[in-house]
Amino acid sequence: MVTEYQHVVPVLMSGGSGTRLWPASRSDRPKQFLPLVDDRTMVRATIDRLDGLDTAPPLIVANATHADLVRAELEGAGYDGDRMILEPVGRNTAPAAAVAALELTRNGDDPLMLLLPADHVIEDEAAFHGATRHACQLAADGRLVTFGIVPDRPETGYGYIRTGAPIDDAALIVAEFVEKPNAATAASYVTSGNYLWNSGMFVFRCSDYLEALGEFAPQIKEGCEMTLDQSKRSGGVYLDSELFAATPSDSIDYAVMEHTTAGAVVPLNAGWNDVGSWTALHAIAARDEAGNVVIGDVTVIESSGSYIRADGRLVTVAGLENAVVIDTPDALLVTTLNRAQLVKDVVDKLQEEGRDEAIRSTGLEA
Amino acid sequence: MVTEYQHVVPVLMSGGSGTRLWPASRSDRPKQFLPLVDDRTMVRATIDRLDGLDTAPPLIVANATHADLVRAELEGAGYDGDRMILEPVGRNTAPAAAVAALELTRNGDDPLMLLLPADHVIEDEAAFHGATRHACQLAADGRLVTFGIVPDRPETGYGYIRTGAPIDDAALIVAEFVEKPNAATAASYVTSGNYLWNSGMFVFRCSDYLEALGEFAPQIKEGCEMTLDQSKRSGGVYLDSELFAATPSDSIDYAVMEHTTAGAVVPLNAGWNDVGSWTALHAIAARDEAGNVVIGDVTVIESSGSYIRADGRLVTVAGLENAVVIDTPDALLVTTLNRAQLVKDVVDKLQEEGRDEAIRSTGLEA
Repeated sequence: MVTEYQHVVPVLMSGGSGTRLWPASRSDRPKQFLPLVDDRTMVRATIDRLDGLDTAPPLIVANATHADLVRAELEGAGYDGDRMILEPVGRNTAPAAAVAALELTRNGDDPLMLLLPADHVIEDEAAFHGATRHACQLAADGRLVTFGIVPDRPETGYGYIRTGAPIDDAALIVAEFVEKPNAATAASYVTSGNYLWNSGMFVFRCSDYLEALGEFAPQIKEGCEMTLDQSKRSGGVYLDSELFAATPSDSIDYAVMEHTTAGAVVPLNAGWNDVGSWTALHAIAARDEAGNVVIGDVTVIESSGSYIRADGRLVTVAGLENAVVIDTPDALLVTTLNRAQLVKDVVDKLQEEGRDEAIRSTGLEA
Repeated sequence: MVTEYQHVVPVLMSGGSGTRLWPASRSDRPKQFLPLVDDRTMVRATIDRLDGLDTAPPLIVANATHADLVRAELEGAGYDGDRMILEPVGRNTAPAAAVAALELTRNGDDPLMLLLPADHVIEDEAAFHGATRHACQLAADGRLVTFGIVPDRPETGYGYIRTGAPIDDAALIVAEFVEKPNAATAASYVTSGNYLWNSGMFVFRCSDYLEALGEFAPQIKEGCEMTLDQSKRSGGVYLDSELFAATPSDSIDYAVMEHTTAGAVVPLNAGWNDVGSWTALHAIAARDEAGNVVIGDVTVIESSGSYIRADGRLVTVAGLENAVVIDTPDALLVTTLNRAQLVKDVVDKLQEEGRDEAIRSTGLEA
């Protein structure tokens, strides 16, 4: 067993720009680099979550503008800071996984890769470890394995996986990937017991993924091969800008998983959360008796069910219910838990108005 | 007529600490020194409102800690910066009016004094001028005159004046001062047509006020006489700390108006507002189509009926209704229009917690 997992390389995908958690999250320091849930960044929590799996050191695929942040994360966790592949532009997950697979097989090795978004929360690490071990066994047998989150509510914000026949007692055939449903459809999915949330986590043998990519999305494979050939290796792999930008952008789901007959899904029931909104953070954070999550220098009067985050100044709230108040040194957001998805509209409007400075950076970080 | 009004001295009472408009209003710069309604401070707007009445230069009674602010207001309006009486502690309006009356009669003169809180809004200046002229005529005849605001709603936050018999077509006998009523009582007051809001504005002949004070509150009169005798005159009248602190604290209403038979009330229907809360400011400010009042660098998405004030940073609100967001460099308040009175509880809690710096000053003013 131990030997087996030493052939598993965790590949953290750190591609998100994280505008849904603006103004805490900025494009030059998106949510995966922030201590949003506890005192660790989400990248670090993702790395720490591997403890006990006996995997190889992690590899991180990230935006080149975040190179310094990624290096600090790797070194902070005790790893070689050069273990990163740096993208000049984001091309979605299929190319990210491809350059990782190409890099990991470059010396003739062919490990399993455990592809993990760097900005998810998983509360039950034992359950995560169990599911990962099982997924690795299936991937070692040639399966292209994804993880499906056991839904606890009819969420309309996620894609779903319809499960097919059982492969064994802890994995099923992938029957179909389905888009984000409306509320009625989501409810029917949850009731049926045949649907899981699409997590964006995978385990593949590198060569199996590259082979499938060559079959179903040959332009991506070819583009990534050319890109990696021309990339610079200097404190990490810096992907060639022109060649990577010319590579088609697509997700692993669309490019490979929807086409392959080798797909398998391992159900995961482990307190998973993609931290996709302030509402999601409120749901997973420690709340006081009034249901408030309060971070920083905050004074609360007759308020309940709210998420209040101060960052350097005194924040006071009075008579609010289900409010979201996110204070940063240069920008403030006030919204409600029910309408926190409007942060996207706020960021869009700021972008239209040319307020790049508000989206890019607080300008105040060390 | 002109000659007559040259014997009217406006006395601005600037005693309020203004915590109801925290965090914009701080004890070292309360609301009367802030440009809350337009680009002028409320003191300056009160002075400007006298234009056309041909009064003498104003005299301002204020807290000694605000001496520099008061001087700047007087000089900014083109008056002698020394025309201020500075209180070491607040003793309410009866002593404030008494030291003003004693000062104004010190050289043997005996003008009328027009006592005006320095932090009220009056939209219709012509109506204010008309009522003031009428009040001055009555005061010249020996009446102790107050202004009663014609109520436009059953407000429970104000005291009321029950009117008695008419004196003439624009003034009535004061039958009774009544405390803040409950909602049902307030409604009956407004329906009856016999009640006016207690404005805290007065016109007295100085000697008449001092005589009435000597009759009904002799300790206040005596305390103020002793205080003024021992005060320092150096760029304004600095009242003696020990003697003024030993003078009983009381309002003009309690000390004099409730006892005198010379009382008269002039109804005033002039868009009066005491700017006693953020809710009040929202009501009188220019609102956009969605009913929002937006000041400073504010981005609003799908929000309505809200009062949003930014002071130096980007403030964004999304999906809010009837919200109050007051941003200052060192403190933020978020509440709702319906519950804005809770700002008092916020300030009380900060005081309990020893957060004097948050109540006293932004620490950032020039």
